[in-house]
Amino acid sequence: MKIVIAPDSFKGSISAWEASVAIERGIKKVLPESNTVLVPVADGGEGTMNSLVVATGGHIIEHTVTGPLHTPVQAAYGILGNGETCVIEMASASGLCLVTTEQRNPLITTTYGTGELIKKAMDAGCRRFILAIGGSATNDGGSGMLQALGMKLLDDAGDEIGFGGGELRRIAAIDTRNFDPRIAQAEFLIATDVQNPFIGPHGASYVFGPQKGATPEMVEMLDGYLTHWADIIESKTGIRLHERPGAGAAGGIGGAFQAFFPSITKRGIDIVIEYTKLKEKMEGAALVFTGEGQIDFQTASGKTPMGVAQEARKHGIPVFALAGSVGPGIDVLYEQGIHSIHSITNAPMTLQEAMEGAAELLAFTSEQVLRTYLASQVYRDILSSPK
Amino acid sequence: MKIVIAPDSFKGSISAWEASVAIERGIKKVLPESNTVLVPVADGGEGTMNSLVVATGGHIIEHTVTGPLHTPVQAAYGILGNGETCVIEMASASGLCLVTTEQRNPLITTTYGTGELIKKAMDAGCRRFILAIGGSATNDGGSGMLQALGMKLLDDAGDEIGFGGGELRRIAAIDTRNFDPRIAQAEFLIATDVQNPFIGPHGASYVFGPQKGATPEMVEMLDGYLTHWADIIESKTGIRLHERPGAGAAGGIGGAFQAFFPSITKRGIDIVIEYTKLKEKMEGAALVFTGEGQIDFQTASGKTPMGVAQEARKHGIPVFALAGSVGPGIDVLYEQGIHSIHSITNAPMTLQEAMEGAAELLAFTSEQVLRTYLASQVYRDILSSPK
Repeated sequence: MKIVIAPDSFKGSISAWEASVAIERGIKKVLPESNTVLVPVADGGEGTMNSLVVATGGHIIEHTVTGPLHTPVQAAYGILGNGETCVIEMASASGLCLVTTEQRNPLITTTYGTGELIKKAMDAGCRRFILAIGGSATNDGGSGMLQALGMKLLDDAGDEIGFGGGELRRIAAIDTRNFDPRIAQAEFLIATDVQNPFIGPHGASYVFGPQKGATPEMVEMLDGYLTHWADIIESKTGIRLHERPGAGAAGGIGGAFQAFFPSITKRGIDIVIEYTKLKEKMEGAALVFTGEGQIDFQTASGKTPMGVAQEARKHGIPVFALAGSVGPGIDVLYEQGIHSIHSITNAPMTLQEAMEGAAELLAFTSEQVLRTYLASQVYRDILSSPK
Repeated sequence: MKIVIAPDSFKGSISAWEASVAIERGIKKVLPESNTVLVPVADGGEGTMNSLVVATGGHIIEHTVTGPLHTPVQAAYGILGNGETCVIEMASASGLCLVTTEQRNPLITTTYGTGELIKKAMDAGCRRFILAIGGSATNDGGSGMLQALGMKLLDDAGDEIGFGGGELRRIAAIDTRNFDPRIAQAEFLIATDVQNPFIGPHGASYVFGPQKGATPEMVEMLDGYLTHWADIIESKTGIRLHERPGAGAAGGIGGAFQAFFPSITKRGIDIVIEYTKLKEKMEGAALVFTGEGQIDFQTASGKTPMGVAQEARKHGIPVFALAGSVGPGIDVLYEQGIHSIHSITNAPMTLQEAMEGAAELLAFTSEQVLRTYLASQVYRDILSSPK
């Protein structure tokens, strides 16, 4: 029996790879000779680079770049197994994970490091990019990234502006003469599920600003500055980002890609499914296991278990989903190909205990789910056998 | 599809009946037209009376009797649907549940109330008895019960002794002339899994005394007094309880039944399975759901999920077990007919939260388990359908 194991990470606990291995252990306890295919996946968020690198047999390259708070951080990009596609998690260079709660301040956080990573990868010969833009600490409209790639953002006095969403108000002109010419020859695949516009009540600042540390007053300022930045871009390129869907992704970096990069946008999970060849790996499989730390109503919005299930459904393969925590509103998931959803907690326990024991609990629950599935098979075999 | 639902209670949280209803709710969500058969069960412990009364369409009769601490308590016995069999939970009249932790003292706790219940039921015409003797607060060798039924236990001066294990030392003679003559015409089926002898290191006092409040010194005293009591019984009846298996059940009341009552002993779960007609109800069932608050290595020792699974195995029916908490050492259960074991916790939570939410969690988990089982069926139907 071929079984595909395609979980996301259990955030704060185990990686997607560790989750795959744990699920496999549970399965092998019941069916030691099953053919398990491990495909750790991600939905464009944390773990996307690793998932694609692992699935394609690629490698990871580290660089020191400018972090969101302007100080050096160790970041990384991945080169896929084909040797030419570069995968970058924006969070690696400009992520909220690099900033303490107290330090969060989208008036000053910059995407400069993300631009530096792109530049480094182009230096290494990459012209195809996958950019996973989740988890950013920034609201700078992608200005830092553009600066890192040679674009000059000038104020009234002709001086370059500084870093952060707060500086956008100073921009009077854009000088693209030194903008890296390799950009125009490259392809950028932007992994994001965000459809928000650049500005306004559904825009980057109002919707995502608060989680990046913006107070209500800051949100209002940031939205005003992004509006000014969008006006400047429109006057320079003719591209009107203001209401454009997806332009508000990741503090407006989505808009910067739309305006200045040869780019297309896809749902993160769809990109991961494509590049991990999950579809091909599902061929002939009897079962699919997936999972994530939390499964709830939000899972239907492009999260990993959802994407995996939608793919499996095309093949008619049952999907069992495992989660640390199963929240409300999951009924919609059944229609999308998830057959059942199981919490890995095997008793009352704290979040801490669940996280520390995640691998063992995951193995145990996978075992029980498989036993349940096989009970049915065994029974039907008995029923259909001659009396 | 016929589905038998045969859980025990989830102790401290929901009764076996409530558990059955919750599981049914989860099942009906997936298969609204399934034929669900609710058989709340028990293993001879708490809930045994209710289980048998519910299963047979009997009724419950309450009486005020002498509690373990000599004060009145409201106790009950059940009359089964046949109108002639009486089921008594000894804990109802003489249980640990009637005594606070501070009050626990097997030197004084008495089984008198249990004897009173038997007498009341005989007054009502009952001659067949099922006595579930788990959960007692006593270590009086059944002396209180015998006194309630007319037996005189006399000291050197010819005076009747008082209540509790501490009084046994005073017994010099037994006067059975007033012992209720209806006892000899009745049948007593004793439900207990306990095989311990009356006295000694594996006897009632040493093994069960401490959980009833006996200090190490009290345990030694109690074992000595039970030895004296066993000597008296032997000299009177010729029956030697000392090393006899099961005589040490429920503080030695097991021995009193063996010496003075027409009685046989069976495993509690087997009696419940027999009287609830679980075997007949399983005919033609596709699935069995069972469950209990805790499932672990102890479950194999005659607990409900085990007994239910052993019965289902004879019919070739898969059994899914649900528990609030799944402990270690459960692998032995698979060989006994349990196909899979699932905790009802759907996220990290406290014991309190699990208990308060038990019904809802049980419904949810039953639903997921059934979905998993049906995923297999659906899949196989697809596989076997013409292309």
